[in-house]
Amino acid sequence: MEKLKVGIIGGGRIGRVHAQSITNLVPSAEIIAIADPFMNEKLESWAKDIGIKETFKDPYDIINHKDIDAVLICSPTSTHTELIQASAKAKKHIFCEKPVDTDLKRIDETMNVVRENDVLFQIGFNRRFDHNHNDVHKAVMNNKVGDVHVIKVTSRDPEPPSAEYVKGSGGIFLDMMIHDFDMVRFLSNSEVKEVYATGAVLVDPEIGKAGDVDTAVVVLTMENGALAVIDNSRQAVYGYDQRTEVFGSKGCAKVENDRKSLIEISTKDSVESEKPLYFFLDRYMDSYATEIIDFINSVQNGAPIKCGIEDAIRPVEIALAASKSLKEHRPVLISEIAISK
Amino acid sequence: MEKLKVGIIGGGRIGRVHAQSITNLVPSAEIIAIADPFMNEKLESWAKDIGIKETFKDPYDIINHKDIDAVLICSPTSTHTELIQASAKAKKHIFCEKPVDTDLKRIDETMNVVRENDVLFQIGFNRRFDHNHNDVHKAVMNNKVGDVHVIKVTSRDPEPPSAEYVKGSGGIFLDMMIHDFDMVRFLSNSEVKEVYATGAVLVDPEIGKAGDVDTAVVVLTMENGALAVIDNSRQAVYGYDQRTEVFGSKGCAKVENDRKSLIEISTKDSVESEKPLYFFLDRYMDSYATEIIDFINSVQNGAPIKCGIEDAIRPVEIALAASKSLKEHRPVLISEIAISK
Amino acid sequence: MEKLKVGIIGGGRIGRVHAQSITNLVPSAEIIAIADPFMNEKLESWAKDIGIKETFKDPYDIINHKDIDAVLICSPTSTHTELIQASAKAKKHIFCEKPVDTDLKRIDETMNVVRENDVLFQIGFNRRFDHNHNDVHKAVMNNKVGDVHVIKVTSRDPEPPSAEYVKGSGGIFLDMMIHDFDMVRFLSNSEVKEVYATGAVLVDPEIGKAGDVDTAVVVLTMENGALAVIDNSRQAVYGYDQRTEVFGSKGCAKVENDRKSLIEISTKDSVESEKPLYFFLDRYMDSYATEIIDFINSVQNGAPIKCGIEDAIRPVEIALAASKSLKEHRPVLISEIAISK
Amino acid sequence: MEKLKVGIIGGGRIGRVHAQSITNLVPSAEIIAIADPFMNEKLESWAKDIGIKETFKDPYDIINHKDIDAVLICSPTSTHTELIQASAKAKKHIFCEKPVDTDLKRIDETMNVVRENDVLFQIGFNRRFDHNHNDVHKAVMNNKVGDVHVIKVTSRDPEPPSAEYVKGSGGIFLDMMIHDFDMVRFLSNSEVKEVYATGAVLVDPEIGKAGDVDTAVVVLTMENGALAVIDNSRQAVYGYDQRTEVFGSKGCAKVENDRKSLIEISTKDSVESEKPLYFFLDRYMDSYATEIIDFINSVQNGAPIKCGIEDAIRPVEIALAASKSLKEHRPVLISEIAISK
Repeated sequence: MEKLKVGIIGGGRIGRVHAQSITNLVPSAEIIAIADPFMNEKLESWAKDIGIKETFKDPYDIINHKDIDAVLICSPTSTHTELIQASAKAKKHIFCEKPVDTDLKRIDETMNVVRENDVLFQIGFNRRFDHNHNDVHKAVMNNKVGDVHVIKVTSRDPEPPSAEYVKGSGGIFLDMMIHDFDMVRFLSNSEVKEVYATGAVLVDPEIGKAGDVDTAVVVLTMENGALAVIDNSRQAVYGYDQRTEVFGSKGCAKVENDRKSLIEISTKDSVESEKPLYFFLDRYMDSYATEIIDFINSVQNGAPIKCGIEDAIRPVEIALAASKSLKEHRPVLISEIAISK
Repeated sequence: MEKLKVGIIGGGRIGRVHAQSITNLVPSAEIIAIADPFMNEKLESWAKDIGIKETFKDPYDIINHKDIDAVLICSPTSTHTELIQASAKAKKHIFCEKPVDTDLKRIDETMNVVRENDVLFQIGFNRRFDHNHNDVHKAVMNNKVGDVHVIKVTSRDPEPPSAEYVKGSGGIFLDMMIHDFDMVRFLSNSEVKEVYATGAVLVDPEIGKAGDVDTAVVVLTMENGALAVIDNSRQAVYGYDQRTEVFGSKGCAKVENDRKSLIEISTKDSVESEKPLYFFLDRYMDSYATEIIDFINSVQNGAPIKCGIEDAIRPVEIALAASKSLKEHRPVLISEIAISK
Repeated sequence: MEKLKVGIIGGGRIGRVHAQSITNLVPSAEIIAIADPFMNEKLESWAKDIGIKETFKDPYDIINHKDIDAVLICSPTSTHTELIQASAKAKKHIFCEKPVDTDLKRIDETMNVVRENDVLFQIGFNRRFDHNHNDVHKAVMNNKVGDVHVIKVTSRDPEPPSAEYVKGSGGIFLDMMIHDFDMVRFLSNSEVKEVYATGAVLVDPEIGKAGDVDTAVVVLTMENGALAVIDNSRQAVYGYDQRTEVFGSKGCAKVENDRKSLIEISTKDSVESEKPLYFFLDRYMDSYATEIIDFINSVQNGAPIKCGIEDAIRPVEIALAASKSLKEHRPVLISEIAISK
Repeated sequence: MEKLKVGIIGGGRIGRVHAQSITNLVPSAEIIAIADPFMNEKLESWAKDIGIKETFKDPYDIINHKDIDAVLICSPTSTHTELIQASAKAKKHIFCEKPVDTDLKRIDETMNVVRENDVLFQIGFNRRFDHNHNDVHKAVMNNKVGDVHVIKVTSRDPEPPSAEYVKGSGGIFLDMMIHDFDMVRFLSNSEVKEVYATGAVLVDPEIGKAGDVDTAVVVLTMENGALAVIDNSRQAVYGYDQRTEVFGSKGCAKVENDRKSLIEISTKDSVESEKPLYFFLDRYMDSYATEIIDFINSVQNGAPIKCGIEDAIRPVEIALAASKSLKEHRPVLISEIAISK
């Protein structure tokens, strides 16, 4: 069988993670080219080392490459809609990092171009592929939990971003909690109907000056009647805190944090165990690999896309509703925000 | 030293629990009388067996008893304000089961009578005395958690009440979540400023017909800026689910559920451990004992009351605000509700 | 129904614990007398306070008391055989603290007197009644574990005894590990066939000078073919370490240590939880109560004795075999030691 | 910097695992050749796919290859001594799967050849590099545990080998517990002085007919005075059970089993969590990678070998002493077995 030929747009950290995953773990695919406007000697040497033959500065050298079957778009968010549309028109299958955009209209247009050109599209909500959260999802889908009543997601970063970063981030809901909005949809197998958001500046006053909050608790009412709650903090000093729970008529499924090892040390002072994994790439490495393996499996073998067009749109709607809710201090219906059906 | 003489009003389950605790665990006090309008042979025989000499039908036989130093009011909520006021006027120290009342004005008046008569008053939010939740509180007070940012309380009953009970209960916020409102205050060492409540009927449609919800998620904004979230369900099929968590600038303190034993059985099918304790008296027995031990310690030795007049008022305010929030579908300030300062 | 009348011989810590358990938890029984050669004002006052009417110096005032149905022998080990024999001849049912004696011949004679007089006899291996270990036993009896292959018992004290105490203790196997020998029998539902003991002086050289070891690992071969291992230490600085595990053809059942609370505190330094309960009465309080409740239930209602004559004999045999094994540096068969069948 | 050139002898499962680890995780090294007597098209194609240019049938084509700096010996145990000696004489650095041999004299001779030729030698006790066990080792080395008193290792396979395999395996001590003997040395930072072994045939009578036991409990006395115990079973139906514990004067460090995910599902029947990882490659994959990374780091950067010549000899001595102990039913000193110093 011929290998699937993949091109990567964006040679930053996440682009390189995906390149490594395919090289190491997907013998049926090969990355034949990578493009980055800041292509330099170091990046070229890295590419060569893992067997990528062609390097470009211009993403259109990937998009228009006649040998390439699928592109991974790992460039900054502001470039996503243009590159997705061009790739779709060039009949390439597309994996794109989240989010497609922060403007719903542009997302909607872009998804329409994807649909019209009949290419496969996967959005990079990697946490769906995490061994822990995915097992909670499976417990729900296998009816171990029964009808879903309450979904709880705790998501706290180990270190706050700079106020500078926050300014351009679109705010905590679009930048950080968007993962958790998708997680609630994924775990509950239902869509969000209404959002009520609370927020506070408790970690860093500079984040407040930048117009954002650093601590947020959001309540969601789901279309199937369930209630969900997400709490976010920009700083958990003990590490990356990532826990989910689904409670329902037949029981409750939940996951605690992964740790580097399971050591437990008992002394006269206490019983100590390891902190949660600190860095998101340590915590979610398996999910980054699995999402790409699954994407290539969809392209090559027709397996259904597990995180597709709907998933590119809905979390952004929820995030925008949450921002509006926080600003207007009232519950906001998704239908006030949504432009697509 | 002379023993403290205690009278109990109400010979129901909780009155008998307190009688047993004092008899077994507080050698410096003795219960000399119990009153219950339904006093009968069985109750008299029980009283005799544990050494209570006098039994009455009329609570005023306790209140006006010249030998009695302190009364425990364990009768139905509707009788609390009258009995508290009468006991205070009779200069008895008072322990009263929660809540004092569901009407804030009546609570306020009653607390004023308590203040004017200069007697000690303790309200029965027993969970403050629980070994688990109290250790979280201590971690906060000892600054292990730093500034409090987020408080989370999960509280799910093993079995739903009858719709009949629900009708007279005042609703889930006054009947059930009131414990959790107090818990949030206790754990955060701060008062609630604003409440937003969501609710759903997911457990039993009859509860909905009775005008209540059986599943609720409530977000609280605290006066110190922290955010809190409580989730309640009238039915967790796996048992009584009672977990708390406080997250702050220096870390996170949390407790999981108590179990009957720590057995873990690994088989070819799974690794099984025990479910949470099912019955509230099993789960909270130590807290019922400790609150009474502490009350008697306050009366005899002047130790500060750990759960007093303020704690009788504030949780009711929060519950009323939550009911209003659910009804009006908007965040409600405590200041919209509160009548006392 | 008439209450069972109980007399206690020995007013030390454990005698008082049993008195309290019966007074608080067994309404169908009453302690009417207690005897202690060091009976004094303080002990008399304590007895009066919990409702014991008669106090004696001479144990025979209990044994020959015409109203007493059952005696609890809580006096020093050296007095046990005499008091058991006298009580049996006086037709009293007997609960005796472990061990009956350290001399097998005397134990055998004494048990014969018990048998001849047809009174009930229970020996105080309280750990059989512990909520954790008993659940492991039940898992084995309910065939959750299948055929038993390996039994593991970890038992470490929080603080070493004085060398003075060690001298008169009969050594670590008779004084401390005897509980674990019984536990292995209880958990495996089988008898020990052979013992191999290793020991070391690692905690306190004074214990070595007193002729004993303070650390020991013993391997047992069971009559049903299973293998067992026990490790003891006289000092675990983190508290009282009490864990058991049974592994078999269908799975593995195990229990970890009880803790004061389930709090878990995550900080930038670590995740801390509570140490095991430190004091044996804290750890095993429920088992002391349950064994006495069960004993009285056997006397009053004919329930089978759960820890009887065989259990008084076998652990001593194993302990003596272990001592011999350590001394002779070779595996020792129980049949080399046992004098009874 | 020039890449380290590695040759692999043996294209079986473990040889391919190491090839993959180097290819994926060690950019500073490359595998340039692999030899296997059963070299075939499939293996050649696999080699080509991961970038190995040369394939041979004869291991000497690796050993005598002028470009190769280091060899990984992953062929059957019976070939190890010859290949190690030849590689050493060819001045190649050597990584060899465990054990070097089952004959101490041959091991000793071989290690002398290694020493004389001054090449680096690492033996594949991979579990030393496991994230869990290595953290226990570090806790010991960092003096968190204080003086070591007791070491406990539980090691149970998910499925028993065939009786056919058992016959040629050298028995449970050389085939299976040898890992645990090394683990005890690693965790305690001390050598074994004496061994007492017990064993039973409880899993499969065919294993007994093949002259071996399938369940074993071994007690070790260490040179530093500590006591150790290892229990092995050829079949734990719930998965691969791999736990270690070190207890000492300052505390206790222990690790439980890794699981596929941390999901916990509470239902009306029980609280279920995941079984231990079942397959040894799932459980120990990180350790296989880390040992090879460390080996290459030693060769390239002079880092000390973490598992070297001593570690190739001592566990075999202990295994032989254990076999002798089981056969002769007595404790056996390592000095009765050892031929090297």
